Amino acid sequence: VNLDMTDIRIASLRTHSIALADPPLRSSYGLHAPYALRTIVEMESEDGVIGLAETHGGEAMAADIARVTPDVAGTSAWSLAARLMPLLSPALEGDRSQTHRVPGENPLDASMRLYSVLEMAALDLVGKTVGQPVCALLGGRVRDLVPFSAYLFYKHAGGGGEGDDTRDDEYGEGLTPEAMVVQARQMMEAYGFTSIKLKAGVLDPDEEIAAIKAMHVAFGPGVPLRIDPNCAWSVETSVRVGRALARELANGGYLEDPTAGLDGMAAVRRALLAEGIDTPLASNVATTSFDHLPIAVRDDAVQIVLCDPHYWGGLRQVQHLARVCQTFGLGLSMHSNSHLGISLMAMAHVAAASPHLTYACDTHYPWQRAADEVVEGGRIPFEHGSVRITDAPGLGVSLDYDQLARGRERYARCAYRKRDDEAEMRKHVDAQWTRRLPRW
Amino acid sequence: VNLDMTDIRIASLRTHSIALADPPLRSSYGLHAPYALRTIVEMESEDGVIGLAETHGGEAMAADIARVTPDVAGTSAWSLAARLMPLLSPALEGDRSQTHRVPGENPLDASMRLYSVLEMAALDLVGKTVGQPVCALLGGRVRDLVPFSAYLFYKHAGGGGEGDDTRDDEYGEGLTPEAMVVQARQMMEAYGFTSIKLKAGVLDPDEEIAAIKAMHVAFGPGVPLRIDPNCAWSVETSVRVGRALARELANGGYLEDPTAGLDGMAAVRRALLAEGIDTPLASNVATTSFDHLPIAVRDDAVQIVLCDPHYWGGLRQVQHLARVCQTFGLGLSMHSNSHLGISLMAMAHVAAASPHLTYACDTHYPWQRAADEVVEGGRIPFEHGSVRITDAPGLGVSLDYDQLARGRERYARCAYRKRDDEAEMRKHVDAQWTRRLPRW
Repeated sequence: VNLDMTDIRIASLRTHSIALADPPLRSSYGLHAPYALRTIVEMESEDGVIGLAETHGGEAMAADIARVTPDVAGTSAWSLAARLMPLLSPALEGDRSQTHRVPGENPLDASMRLYSVLEMAALDLVGKTVGQPVCALLGGRVRDLVPFSAYLFYKHAGGGGEGDDTRDDEYGEGLTPEAMVVQARQMMEAYGFTSIKLKAGVLDPDEEIAAIKAMHVAFGPGVPLRIDPNCAWSVETSVRVGRALARELANGGYLEDPTAGLDGMAAVRRALLAEGIDTPLASNVATTSFDHLPIAVRDDAVQIVLCDPHYWGGLRQVQHLARVCQTFGLGLSMHSNSHLGISLMAMAHVAAASPHLTYACDTHYPWQRAADEVVEGGRIPFEHGSVRITDAPGLGVSLDYDQLARGRERYARCAYRKRDDEAEMRKHVDAQWTRRLPRW
Repeated sequence: VNLDMTDIRIASLRTHSIALADPPLRSSYGLHAPYALRTIVEMESEDGVIGLAETHGGEAMAADIARVTPDVAGTSAWSLAARLMPLLSPALEGDRSQTHRVPGENPLDASMRLYSVLEMAALDLVGKTVGQPVCALLGGRVRDLVPFSAYLFYKHAGGGGEGDDTRDDEYGEGLTPEAMVVQARQMMEAYGFTSIKLKAGVLDPDEEIAAIKAMHVAFGPGVPLRIDPNCAWSVETSVRVGRALARELANGGYLEDPTAGLDGMAAVRRALLAEGIDTPLASNVATTSFDHLPIAVRDDAVQIVLCDPHYWGGLRQVQHLARVCQTFGLGLSMHSNSHLGISLMAMAHVAAASPHLTYACDTHYPWQRAADEVVEGGRIPFEHGSVRITDAPGLGVSLDYDQLARGRERYARCAYRKRDDEAEMRKHVDAQWTRRLPRW
């Protein structure tokens, strides 16, 4: 131990916009494009240690990081987060929910996302410098294994990518209850997941009810089931689905963002409770910031918050959120977007350092392929559906620069600079398609 | 920077029970004894670095620390807090408020206090090892100067201590409105405080109203005034005082724990609001743990939480609490007991690292004397009523072992092993005295 250790000064910040192959997954927002966009940040100290971070991709995110890059150089990695604290209190008024925009595309939470990615990189940099895992910097881990859930998507055939860069379609088309059972089984066998979430809001609600019922039959009541239509349903439809799936969503299941807005969520909750159905409502659409919580609590609109360190303001804010949820009797789990290993490890580290984590976290990781992973050594392994937190410093991952270069090349080649699932839907499925809320 | 830095292993934990002279201060709990008891903890790493902490004193606290000492040795200072996390969820049911017991003497929060002191020592140890101030370990400071308030007490003549060990009576007797103005002026001149809190619940409420009014006249509306009877009043009396002091407690003032219990507080709030009086109610008596917050929020019983890292579960829990308060529109300030420089710096570091701190903090520090300070270099200086956070590692203080030895000697000599203000009241003021709630 070096008692004369000096501060950890940030020398430079490098931002890499990359694209990774993404299968044609469906949601109420539309269709995933052949490539998902991510941003990788390298924060290098004067001592040559490199802290990593990963966040939403595209031009706007990269521009936001570029804007603060000159201010970050020369500051201390230890205290960067506090210096940037004003980013967590944006003056912008407006709809910070994800009702009308996919995560990562709402300009009203851009400053939260910017704070998050810089805090993540600074924590990794500090951890790698002092030889401690990020969870130790956050107070220490309360669990070594962070559980994730199988995240099923209705999908068209195809594994993502384009032309010569096409990926194997590991899971095949999934548009029927039977196919979704197969998808679930395949993912559970590959990763060891012991709970299942179905991204819904895609087919007629009766089809989606049938899919959940089929999984309940296939896997039994010991496997918690969740369903998430991203607010595609009216209050009435939400209540109808909640009623139809009262038994299947019991025992650790939940109904996620069935309808738009905290008012709508509260109405669904009231109606279900009136029928004696206590299925908790989870949310990452109606509830995306601390500002939403007082109303969510007051109106009992949300029983489980699906946090995300990428837009809730970073890892420490997620820890604060966990305490808020514990205090007010809310459950906590974690939301995911298409992501690679750096984000996965950031999610796992904060989850490990947050005592109040009541449901297995979401991850899109099974939908990505080894060809696109940018962390050295390849994809992060899962053990029985969980990611293990080791004693490796920082987030426990470093960059494979060849792989990073390929991600940058894909980004340069691909035609879009932001996520637009609606445009993609019109391009590949239905030229007239527009997102309507509620759809059913 | 040493990239091969190994873990910070705790080699030993040393606990020192000390006594420090304390003037005969009055509160609704009774009378301060000639000595206040504190516990100083040294947590030494295998590398010989020493982390410090300070907390409530007496036999029970020391015994609690002794009980866990064997388990602490050999563990990592980075992750000690997470290992001890079960202490923050005590299984004990019962009244965790301070309605009937002074802070530090409620066995129902003993495990929180134990956690706090060990976390504090571990943070100081880590900070001193890596050369960073504790606030940097907590995410970095958002302020360099942490403001404190003048904390006035009704008092009998005497400066504390006994026999040859008696301290100068710097402030003299203070039992009239005029004397309290003198006390305030003296303390403000010595420390630069720009706000005032009066510990009340001692004299007839009309006397205490007169004291606040006299200060309002003496110092003008630019000096926020607070009054804290430690729940000595009925709801009716509380409302009467709130009405009488509506003007004087405006502009950054507050009414603190006027009456017992969250129900009582809510009733006072409702009655005052009905008269158009929006004086916020602060609390460290009715609200002492996260468990109290849902009811405090729901019933609007408390508008300002007076946190205390010594019994809220440590510095990180206070940061979480700050976020809870910010989220639910509550103010936040900090409670104090008789303490020395280590506690003062711990309070200052977490306050510096908590963006949401809406009122100057409390401190008993002006009531203690240089003769009793255990930190090297003597008493912590104040600048314009604030404590400055420097770049010094850890909490920024180290032990003066001669002074510590004197504190231990005083503890050995003094007759009591816990704080009992009621017994002291009977001994020195009124042999028949018992605490009654409400008294007025």
